[in-house]
Amino acid sequence: MDQKWLREQTQQLELALARQGLTSSVPAVVEMQPQVVEIPKDRQNLARFIDHTLLKPDASRLAIKQLCEEAREHRFQSVCVNPVHVSYAAELLEGSPVKVCTVIGFPLGASTSLMKVMEARDALVNGAQELDMVINIGALVEGDYARVLSDIKAVRDAAPGVVLKVILETGYLTKEQIVRACLLVRMAGADFVKTSTGFGPGGATVEDISLMRTVVGPEFGVKASGGVRDFATAQAMIKAGATRIGTSSGAAIIAGAEGTGDY
Amino acid sequence: MDQKWLREQTQQLELALARQGLTSSVPAVVEMQPQVVEIPKDRQNLARFIDHTLLKPDASRLAIKQLCEEAREHRFQSVCVNPVHVSYAAELLEGSPVKVCTVIGFPLGASTSLMKVMEARDALVNGAQELDMVINIGALVEGDYARVLSDIKAVRDAAPGVVLKVILETGYLTKEQIVRACLLVRMAGADFVKTSTGFGPGGATVEDISLMRTVVGPEFGVKASGGVRDFATAQAMIKAGATRIGTSSGAAIIAGAEGTGDY
Repeated sequence: MDQKWLREQTQQLELALARQGLTSSVPAVVEMQPQVVEIPKDRQNLARFIDHTLLKPDASRLAIKQLCEEAREHRFQSVCVNPVHVSYAAELLEGSPVKVCTVIGFPLGASTSLMKVMEARDALVNGAQELDMVINIGALVEGDYARVLSDIKAVRDAAPGVVLKVILETGYLTKEQIVRACLLVRMAGADFVKTSTGFGPGGATVEDISLMRTVVGPEFGVKASGGVRDFATAQAMIKAGATRIGTSSGAAIIAGAEGTGDY
Repeated sequence: MDQKWLREQTQQLELALARQGLTSSVPAVVEMQPQVVEIPKDRQNLARFIDHTLLKPDASRLAIKQLCEEAREHRFQSVCVNPVHVSYAAELLEGSPVKVCTVIGFPLGASTSLMKVMEARDALVNGAQELDMVINIGALVEGDYARVLSDIKAVRDAAPGVVLKVILETGYLTKEQIVRACLLVRMAGADFVKTSTGFGPGGATVEDISLMRTVVGPEFGVKASGGVRDFATAQAMIKAGATRIGTSSGAAIIAGAEGTGDY
């Protein structure tokens, strides 16, 4: 990784925030070896990395039930479902180690901060244990970093102690914007940066995951999502720095087949 | 249109609702000539049919400004923007006849009814004058019609007197499901049925618009959206029964060119 370029990104973000009246210091990016994550050598060991995901808008309750059963069986880390299915998934997974994860401001990230906060609260009341929110992509792209930061912070404050993953939708972003977004996610006190919604352009790439890992440092969560459909790709993502994999192909991956979903 | 088939759809919906404890009567579908809508012969007369739409998640404020200026210039019916841009668009269009339209539960329709209600209220406070909500697609597909109905009714009640368009996302639906969804939208007291979000599979077709017009009757609103990019297509949709066109290509259509957007 080019240290000079990374330092420049950090400084430019700090300057831009200062111009917007925020004097918060931006964390320095120090290239370090990531936490030693054991790359799963077999399919069974991969399961704990997987957020078993079904976000299709036409998903039925029957499909959600199947998702939860597969997650129990394979001991996936969580199921990731739309808000409308959270209470049902929570009911199905009660007493199981599999968590219920849901999405906030999904997939466009273009709802108001107030609504993201309300959605987060509603999801927690309904039994969600992890939240994957989408950033204000438009604000990031136009350089309104203060707004991106306060949007993430608002959800962070609404869900203290809950694992909060922040989706950048990398397919819309330049490398510079990915770096700045990762720094803002760190500053906001979230737990994970996550690549993609699965509904936007592109998905997780090894290159982006590696960049994101460098910027967030060794102890932060990095979730690869969008287009991870087989065991080899999942392994490559973890090797590049991912600590979580979002995929609708979890069961297929574990079974040794290739999935067909987009996320 | 096959009257027998339409009557069957109506009866089956009534039966299904009764099984779910709802004895509300389903409106009868009577094939009638739609309100005489003058098909616009020239581009200028098309403008009042158009919801000038920019829902891309990476849209900047500058792009929203341009959208609002174009809408003023061409006298489009409304601008349709994501919730995060409503207050800015309302500010830009103050004193103009162009309305501000926004989207609710968009584009997946998979947020809880409570959140759709909160989003509607938030949007109205921020200056929205028309609301385009997405139905609970999963509930429709699995035949939980009572849930689809109460979801629409909840938003209807939260925004009395405000033009409410209900997006079916026809690309996921069979003809039977489109008929039933249209009947439920009528029963809920909304103002328009709308085909697509522009983010799902497929968009408006002349065949679907014609079917939707038949089912909702001559006095209801029908909005064609998704893939309408040129004057001839817009004309064809209006001829089939559309009273509103949602498109990101409004300015191009009026200028005689072809747009490039997906919605």
